[in-house]
Amino acid sequence: MKEVRYFYVPDACHRDELPVDEANHALRVLRLQSGDQMFLMDGNGAFYEAEVTLASSKHCHYRITNTLVQEKAWKGKIHLGIAPTKMMERIEWMAEKSTEIGIDEFSFLHCKFSERKVLKKERIEKIVVSAMKQSRKPWMPVVHEMTAFRDFIDAHTTGHRYICHCYNEIEKKDLYTELLLLAKDEAVPEVTILVGPEGDFSIDEVNYALSQGFESVSLGNARLRTETAGLSGVMMAQLAMRK
Amino acid sequence: MKEVRYFYVPDACHRDELPVDEANHALRVLRLQSGDQMFLMDGNGAFYEAEVTLASSKHCHYRITNTLVQEKAWKGKIHLGIAPTKMMERIEWMAEKSTEIGIDEFSFLHCKFSERKVLKKERIEKIVVSAMKQSRKPWMPVVHEMTAFRDFIDAHTTGHRYICHCYNEIEKKDLYTELLLLAKDEAVPEVTILVGPEGDFSIDEVNYALSQGFESVSLGNARLRTETAGLSGVMMAQLAMRK
Repeated sequence: MKEVRYFYVPDACHRDELPVDEANHALRVLRLQSGDQMFLMDGNGAFYEAEVTLASSKHCHYRITNTLVQEKAWKGKIHLGIAPTKMMERIEWMAEKSTEIGIDEFSFLHCKFSERKVLKKERIEKIVVSAMKQSRKPWMPVVHEMTAFRDFIDAHTTGHRYICHCYNEIEKKDLYTELLLLAKDEAVPEVTILVGPEGDFSIDEVNYALSQGFESVSLGNARLRTETAGLSGVMMAQLAMRK
Repeated sequence: MKEVRYFYVPDACHRDELPVDEANHALRVLRLQSGDQMFLMDGNGAFYEAEVTLASSKHCHYRITNTLVQEKAWKGKIHLGIAPTKMMERIEWMAEKSTEIGIDEFSFLHCKFSERKVLKKERIEKIVVSAMKQSRKPWMPVVHEMTAFRDFIDAHTTGHRYICHCYNEIEKKDLYTELLLLAKDEAVPEVTILVGPEGDFSIDEVNYALSQGFESVSLGNARLRTETAGLSGVMMAQLAMRK
């Protein structure tokens, strides 16, 4: 029972009541009552031990009894921009696994060859919250609304930015080697990695990103599905940037 | 159409006919005819360009027109021994993703806390063949029958062997650091990584493995699901052992 008493409560230390969804779970599924113990995660690096002070039919009030601020296992920021796959479940598991491994930000790109043009951010957020609880990581990755490729590029002009693609005619560096060098040089590297749809980015998209300061990279020799490529990028960044 | 004309034909250069399953796909789904081109993968490191010489209702004969022997992207051998998850789809995706990333051998362990006691090797093999084709890797990972934990340990007495677990009272080295050191020292490292079930290995199992020469390791600070832990181990080995 204790296993599942984790709740995601943004800004937990400035409130005294579970958000609606979490209250519903606490009251109707777990049937918590006044005096019961629970754990809150604020999505911003802290766990809280808390006690239920009042459990009504719709409201679950709490009192924090202990604050446990965690140290992140990686330095800097990892941001993945990826074109969602045609099969929703593939991009969902990528989101779940990346959250378990550790990531700061997800963006979803609408590209020329995208097979999926629409994505409900709320659905991904739900999976991410669940993976965050399951993996006991009190950092909630930011999930952005789907964005047109060019708009994303134009909006992201800082940090270390990489675009993974399969065009042999465009020179590519090895992403992992680049990340290792970066992590050696910088204390707080901010990394953005872009992964294209099933049919890859268009060559115009790659060239536009390069013209705006993105670096052309490869994830290695393997021919990976979109969702596997995304997770590989996150895993490489994690290994390179871990403390 | 060309995309899907990849066939897995073990020992392809010593035969002249597709195996039954592949012939069925070639003849009934793709409707290949005499003179059509196709690609064969022997699962042992080679691609073959081939031409259909005879297509009957059940038989698809071929003639090899070109042999393309590939160099493996990683050195040595990567063997994952994992307790299958309760939900079959989770272990299936782990097998798919590990094959895309690159692995040599899968073993499935029946442990004290295993939630799944039975696993059809044929089902995993099917997924692995499909991932091998999809990722254009002509190496077919060996898939073993499910084995009792102790039998596995007793049968694996050579190479570099690691057991991942979550017991704080047993000292653990960092798996990735160990793999990096190993890959520096050895030209052809043979690595076996064990990952336990949802409830972890029992402490007796961990101690037994250690007594038989396995090393106690951690995959990092993250709390990972079984299937994510398995894939993480494979990715770490790939990154450490890539050529």
